[in-house]
Amino acid sequence: MLDRVLDTIDSRKDQSLALLKDFLRIPSVSTKPENANDVKHCAEWLADQIRQTGLSATVYPTDGHPIVVAKNSHQPGRPTVLMYGHYDVQPPEPLDLWTTPAFEPDVRKDENGFDAVYARGAVDDKGQVWCHVEAIRAFAGNLPVNVTMLIEGEEECGSGHLDAFVEQHADLLKADVCVISDTNQFARGLPAITYGLRGLCYMEVFVTGPDHDLHSGMYGGAVPNPANVLCQLIASLHDTDGRVTIPGFYDDVVPLSQEERDQWKKLPLTEEQFAAGVGIPFGNGEVGFTSIERKWARPTLDVNGLTSGYQGVGAKTVIASKASAKVSMRLVPKQDPAKIRAAFEKHLRDRCPKNVKIEFVGHGLSPGVLTPVESPAVQLAREALEIGFGVKPTIMREGGSIPVVGLIKKVLGIDTLLVGFGLPDDRVHSPNEKFDLDALHKGTRTAALLYAKLASL
Amino acid sequence: MLDRVLDTIDSRKDQSLALLKDFLRIPSVSTKPENANDVKHCAEWLADQIRQTGLSATVYPTDGHPIVVAKNSHQPGRPTVLMYGHYDVQPPEPLDLWTTPAFEPDVRKDENGFDAVYARGAVDDKGQVWCHVEAIRAFAGNLPVNVTMLIEGEEECGSGHLDAFVEQHADLLKADVCVISDTNQFARGLPAITYGLRGLCYMEVFVTGPDHDLHSGMYGGAVPNPANVLCQLIASLHDTDGRVTIPGFYDDVVPLSQEERDQWKKLPLTEEQFAAGVGIPFGNGEVGFTSIERKWARPTLDVNGLTSGYQGVGAKTVIASKASAKVSMRLVPKQDPAKIRAAFEKHLRDRCPKNVKIEFVGHGLSPGVLTPVESPAVQLAREALEIGFGVKPTIMREGGSIPVVGLIKKVLGIDTLLVGFGLPDDRVHSPNEKFDLDALHKGTRTAALLYAKLASL
Repeated sequence: MLDRVLDTIDSRKDQSLALLKDFLRIPSVSTKPENANDVKHCAEWLADQIRQTGLSATVYPTDGHPIVVAKNSHQPGRPTVLMYGHYDVQPPEPLDLWTTPAFEPDVRKDENGFDAVYARGAVDDKGQVWCHVEAIRAFAGNLPVNVTMLIEGEEECGSGHLDAFVEQHADLLKADVCVISDTNQFARGLPAITYGLRGLCYMEVFVTGPDHDLHSGMYGGAVPNPANVLCQLIASLHDTDGRVTIPGFYDDVVPLSQEERDQWKKLPLTEEQFAAGVGIPFGNGEVGFTSIERKWARPTLDVNGLTSGYQGVGAKTVIASKASAKVSMRLVPKQDPAKIRAAFEKHLRDRCPKNVKIEFVGHGLSPGVLTPVESPAVQLAREALEIGFGVKPTIMREGGSIPVVGLIKKVLGIDTLLVGFGLPDDRVHSPNEKFDLDALHKGTRTAALLYAKLASL
Repeated sequence: MLDRVLDTIDSRKDQSLALLKDFLRIPSVSTKPENANDVKHCAEWLADQIRQTGLSATVYPTDGHPIVVAKNSHQPGRPTVLMYGHYDVQPPEPLDLWTTPAFEPDVRKDENGFDAVYARGAVDDKGQVWCHVEAIRAFAGNLPVNVTMLIEGEEECGSGHLDAFVEQHADLLKADVCVISDTNQFARGLPAITYGLRGLCYMEVFVTGPDHDLHSGMYGGAVPNPANVLCQLIASLHDTDGRVTIPGFYDDVVPLSQEERDQWKKLPLTEEQFAAGVGIPFGNGEVGFTSIERKWARPTLDVNGLTSGYQGVGAKTVIASKASAKVSMRLVPKQDPAKIRAAFEKHLRDRCPKNVKIEFVGHGLSPGVLTPVESPAVQLAREALEIGFGVKPTIMREGGSIPVVGLIKKVLGIDTLLVGFGLPDDRVHSPNEKFDLDALHKGTRTAALLYAKLASL
């Protein structure tokens, strides 16, 4: 039966890609109010597609964007698998850097000569959601497990309504294990299980000085300049060893185990390859850690945006009334995101000159997570990956955040298998995002194998 | 005869304002390529208006924006006065902060109940140029001096073609003294002669790290973040005493004289009033100097714009490939602008991490200037101001820059009388720029008195 499922998947590569392209055309940018109707349309399109695989699907409205829940016919005495994904996407800006438009999916060879589909959302997360939709379709109504799909529309803007939804519908969503495909292979052809994610604390900082923009000749040097102040505040967040200076920032951090450090040193990614992959001569960060250790297991702080004053062509000699920065901190177990947010605000308030105003807006809080590597579910997932890709999977952690993993553990009491098919060069969150077509195919096979294997849970 | 001139001016207040509004409607934004035709049209409109006052006027094309030169009939044996002004204006952004549109002049009462005309360029510099046009008109062809008007269209973007023009036309422009109205009264009703201006060195700094935008989860903490690096570089430009840290920055600075410090302490502007005027609890800057001393006589550094990463609504977890800042330094005699630029670049290059790229673009270089206060021309100007405004003028320096003053001294060998009619709350370079209507009237009278008085030079 499984052979027939895999054969079906192999025979449907073109149709799968065609439908994925339809999925990608919808500009479901959840963080922008002007795309709200596109996001809603995308949810309805997806629910309709899922119904055609044999599941029933419902589009649940929320006070934000809708949530899609789909199920096969649940039978007692067999495991229930909850699949989570998101149909919303990051904003496409900056538009002028896309080779083909962000919402006009284009199939072409990537820089290494491999076929890929290029579009915003190609890998994050629509392409990977599509692996599961096609995998389920291939069972032709005969899945060996109970499946519940939970696909939301606000992941890229903080999942503001998901917590309440999962709490209110805990019974609808109950399961034995969760599966999420929104992470990476270690490298092309080296599939992976991800057992750790970083958390996130995303803040926006606003500094206001004079109550209107000033002429920098008439006032320069005699008034506080919010742009200069903001730079000083941001600069104060790191020391020369690349450590974040916020008091207490590292207090609750679970240190890397020597076992992890030894294993990761054997991974097939040198420091030179890492730096070359992003076009820099060498990486840098917290002293005493490798690039992999820094991005998988250490807490960090990055500016995501800077805004002040005149940004057009040429010169304007202005002291702008305001300056702002978007700053995100990636957290590891067991840092407490709310404590980190409070410490961040206090550190900056303490250093802020008394003749300017500082204000904060929070855009997202989630803790780092570690899932147990030795569990039966992880073992079955490793088998599914080995067959699906023909290679033993790498066991890795991930620098990014998937807050829903913590939510699902807390409310539904289950662990999550992070089995993703993206590649490090997919340009997630960047112009020219892509999804490797071989990953689409092998990912669909692997998802099907996973549903089959998990019947033995 | 002078009474008849002043009576004419008093009787033409409405007509003068109506024509000034026509002048203000033309969006002559010199720094924006898309307004190039508006700038040209403005030059032609102005030349036409000047011809109607009895002068001949020529619009000289340059490789940039045109320059207007106008003259009455020059007779030997009497002084020649060169009047300089500019018909171009600053960009209006941010547009959403204007009460009425920047290029739709509106007459209304300001926050203190005084009538003013609101538009971009109202005081800087069209309103003040208009004082001179109307003053000249009121002589009905019988000016007692030779007058040459030199009105350019690139002052707000660095006067890139003015130096060559003045050098090539030194004979056409030769004069005994120059007059510029592009500065302020000390306060409303307290007219001023300005005897010192700061210079300018305007730089743009670009930091590039990874060769494309990155996902801040996947890479955060392991790669150099250009936005964080830029903040560190900008922060390194000041110490905690408010001094600029660039090596050699203060080497050539002519210190304030004790006489100046004593005089300025008597000016009717307290630290509380200064701070209240810009909506801050108190000013700050270089330790050991008052607000007036800082802005008139000390060199300073300000950020005019910050740009990096995502600047839209909400959150985007990106490490942007690039970050940039616009930075201007105000200079005092005898700092050498080219030395300052080189020292600025070296300071930042030395501190720039070796795994990011840093690049610089220059947008303007001019030295600080001091003009002799005891000269006959300044004495005559003081008399003109005292009659025109009914109050003895304040003798002050100015924090802003008018690079042409140094050029005129260097090429034409003459000093400049800086007799301006703006007010500190005119919001120069800011939204809701205005020109006080009483200043328009008294400024026109004063300009006429100045041409009359300078006949005795």
